[in-house]
Amino acid sequence: MDIKELALQKHYEWGGKIEVISRAPIETREDLSTAYTPGVAQPCLEIAANPELSYKLTRRSNLVAVITDGTAVLGLGDIGGLAGMPVMEGKCCLFKEFGGVDAFPICIKSKDPDEIVRTIELISDSFGGINLEDISAPRCFEIEAKLKEKLDIPVFHDDQHGTAIVVGAAMMNAVKLAGKKLSEITVVINGAGSAGIAIGKFLLKLGIGNLIMVDIGGIINRDEHYDNPAHAEMAKITNKDNLKGSLADALRGADVFVGVSKPNLVTSEMVKSMAEKSILFPMANPNPEITYELAKESGAFIVGTGRSDYPNQINNVLVFPGIFKGALSCRAKAITEEMKLAAAHAIANLVTEDKLSVEYIIPSALDKSVAEAVANAVAEEWKKS
Amino acid sequence: MDIKELALQKHYEWGGKIEVISRAPIETREDLSTAYTPGVAQPCLEIAANPELSYKLTRRSNLVAVITDGTAVLGLGDIGGLAGMPVMEGKCCLFKEFGGVDAFPICIKSKDPDEIVRTIELISDSFGGINLEDISAPRCFEIEAKLKEKLDIPVFHDDQHGTAIVVGAAMMNAVKLAGKKLSEITVVINGAGSAGIAIGKFLLKLGIGNLIMVDIGGIINRDEHYDNPAHAEMAKITNKDNLKGSLADALRGADVFVGVSKPNLVTSEMVKSMAEKSILFPMANPNPEITYELAKESGAFIVGTGRSDYPNQINNVLVFPGIFKGALSCRAKAITEEMKLAAAHAIANLVTEDKLSVEYIIPSALDKSVAEAVANAVAEEWKKS
Repeated sequence: MDIKELALQKHYEWGGKIEVISRAPIETREDLSTAYTPGVAQPCLEIAANPELSYKLTRRSNLVAVITDGTAVLGLGDIGGLAGMPVMEGKCCLFKEFGGVDAFPICIKSKDPDEIVRTIELISDSFGGINLEDISAPRCFEIEAKLKEKLDIPVFHDDQHGTAIVVGAAMMNAVKLAGKKLSEITVVINGAGSAGIAIGKFLLKLGIGNLIMVDIGGIINRDEHYDNPAHAEMAKITNKDNLKGSLADALRGADVFVGVSKPNLVTSEMVKSMAEKSILFPMANPNPEITYELAKESGAFIVGTGRSDYPNQINNVLVFPGIFKGALSCRAKAITEEMKLAAAHAIANLVTEDKLSVEYIIPSALDKSVAEAVANAVAEEWKKS
Repeated sequence: MDIKELALQKHYEWGGKIEVISRAPIETREDLSTAYTPGVAQPCLEIAANPELSYKLTRRSNLVAVITDGTAVLGLGDIGGLAGMPVMEGKCCLFKEFGGVDAFPICIKSKDPDEIVRTIELISDSFGGINLEDISAPRCFEIEAKLKEKLDIPVFHDDQHGTAIVVGAAMMNAVKLAGKKLSEITVVINGAGSAGIAIGKFLLKLGIGNLIMVDIGGIINRDEHYDNPAHAEMAKITNKDNLKGSLADALRGADVFVGVSKPNLVTSEMVKSMAEKSILFPMANPNPEITYELAKESGAFIVGTGRSDYPNQINNVLVFPGIFKGALSCRAKAITEEMKLAAAHAIANLVTEDKLSVEYIIPSALDKSVAEAVANAVAEEWKKS
C-alpha cells in the first residue's frame, strides 16, 4: 500500500488524531464538587484577583493553539482551513509526543488578516502560546507582527521560524564539516515565500557572508521593483554584488543551496557549477528540488532534504515542540530572536564532533530528546534577557 | 479541610483539568509520514473535495467547544472569561467522563454579542458542536439565536436548556408521584434570568397548566412595562390570571416552586401557603432558596436542590453530555425542541415506577449510564425529523 492510501486508511481508523481527556477524576461526589461546582468557584476567584494565576490553575500553562486559515497548506495551497485540519491535528500530535506540550487545532474561516488577528486576540486567554501554521505570504508576516504587538504570550509562525531554525542548525554543522566559515559563504535560497524569507533573515543573523534570494522572477536585486513588500525588503539586505539572472546564475560559485520551492528545479550542471564542498538542502516536499542521489552524483559534499528516507532530514519537528516547551516553562511573553538562535545552536550541538559526518549533520526527527535540549536552551536565554 | 480549600489545592495539583493527547502513535518513520507529511495531504484533499468528510477524518466528529465570555460565571457574576476558565475546564471533564465527548474550553475576550457571534462563527469549523456557557442574560438569547441561524452544527446554551431539561425531567416524576397532572398545576419560577426563562418556556412546552414568573420587581404581569425583551415576552405567555405582587403572593396555592435566584428567599410560611403535596426545587447554588430540611419541615412533599449532599440533586450534568453525544452521533445540524423533550423524557424514564419515591425522582448525577440513554433518545428524535 502506498503512503497516500495508508495515510487515508489510518485517518479513517483514528477518527481524528487528537483527544481531550480529563486530568481530574470524576467518580465521587467530592470529585464533582472540587472539579466543578461549588468548589471550582475558588480557583475562579483567585484568577479574577490575580490573572497570572491562570498559568497555575488552568491548562494554559502547557497549552498551545495551532491556528491556520488554510491558505497555504503543505504543498497543496489554499485549500481552506477545514481541509487543512488533518495537518493541524498532526502538528498537535507532534507537540504532545515530542514536547509533552498540549496543542489544540483551530481553523479560522476568514482570509482577512485583520479579522484573523482579531479572532486570535479574542480567544488568546484560552492558551499559553499561539503557533501559526500554513498561512500564505505575505499575509503571514502582517498577521504575526500584529499578534506579537497585541499579545503577551508567545506567537510563532512555524513555517517561517521553525524552518529557519532547523536549517540554521543543519547549516552550522555542514559548514563546519566543509571546513568553511559562515562569514565567508554564499547561500542561495530558491523560493521567496514565508519559509524562504524567514530562512534568509535567520541566516543573516547567524552571520553568513552573502545571501542570494531567487524567486519565480529570478534573482531578487536592487534594480527591480517589487510589489510584494517582503521581496522589496529582501532586495535591500541581500545580494552584495547585486547579481541578476536565473537560479543557475545564482548558483555559479555558491557554497550552499537551500530550496523551499518546487521539485526538480536544480540540475546536475548547476550543482557542478557550485563551489567546492557544496552543501545542498533541497527541501521541497515530498519531491525535492534535486534528488539526494543526483545531487551526490553531481559532486555535492552534503545533501539534506525534508524526507525521512534519506540522511540529514531537515524537519522542523526538531524545533517547535522544544521552542514552546521552553517558552511555556519560563512563562516567556514572546519568542525572541535570541531564543531562536539559542534553539539552533542547541540542535546543532546535539551532533557531537565524533559523530558529525556528511550523512549526519542533524539529529533524527524521531529523537525525542531534542525537545528537552531546545527547551532548556530557550528558557535559559529568556531568563537572561 | 473545607471544600473551597480542597478545590483550590486540587486545582494547583492538577495544573489544569484537561489535556490534549495524540490518538496516533508517533514512534516510527512510517508513523510520522502517515500522521503528518507527506501522507496527511491525502485526508486534506478528501475533505477539500467533500467537506462532510471532516466528520470522519478529523476529531470534530466528537468534539464540542465550551465557550464563555465570562459575564455570568456560576453565582460569581461578570468575572471575565479568563477567571471563568476553571469552570469551563470542569465542564469539559464532565463531557468526557460522562458522555465520552471531547470538549475544549475557550474564553472570548469581548462582551459585544455581535463580536462574540462572529468569533465563534469563524472558529466553528474546528468543532462538531458549540456549548455556550455562563453568558449573561439577555445577551445569551441573542448570541444563541444568531449562532443557530449562522451555523449548521448544534449550538446549545447549557445554562438555559440543560437546566430546563433536567428540571422538566424531575418535575414530570414529581408531579406523577403527587398524583397530579401537568396540565393542571401552577408552577412559580423565581428568577427570570437565562435559566429561569428557559425553564419556563420548556415547562410550557411540557404542558403545565399555569406558569408564574417572579423577578426582583415581583410577579411578571401584563400591566407592567419591561425594558428586558425576554421579560416582556414572558409577560405575554405566562400568568393566566395576571396576578401581581410578591413571591409570597405567587406561591399562595401554587403546586410547584422552582428557584434559580438567591439563598433563603422562601420562608416556611410561604411553603405552608402552597397547595397540598407541594413540590419545591430551590436550586440556587450552593445555598438554596430554602434549605431541604426547612422545606420538608414546612410540609413540602418533594424537595430537590442543586446540592449533591441531599436527595434529588437537579444537576444538568445529567443532560449536556448525552445531548451532545446523541447530536454528534447522528450528525444533527441542530438541537431541536423535540430533541430536548426527548432528553427530558429519557431522564425521567430512567427512574422506574418501582424505585420512584419522594427521595428519588431523578437519577444520580454520578450515574454514567444516563448519558447513553439521553444520547439514544436524542439521536432517534433527530432521525425522525
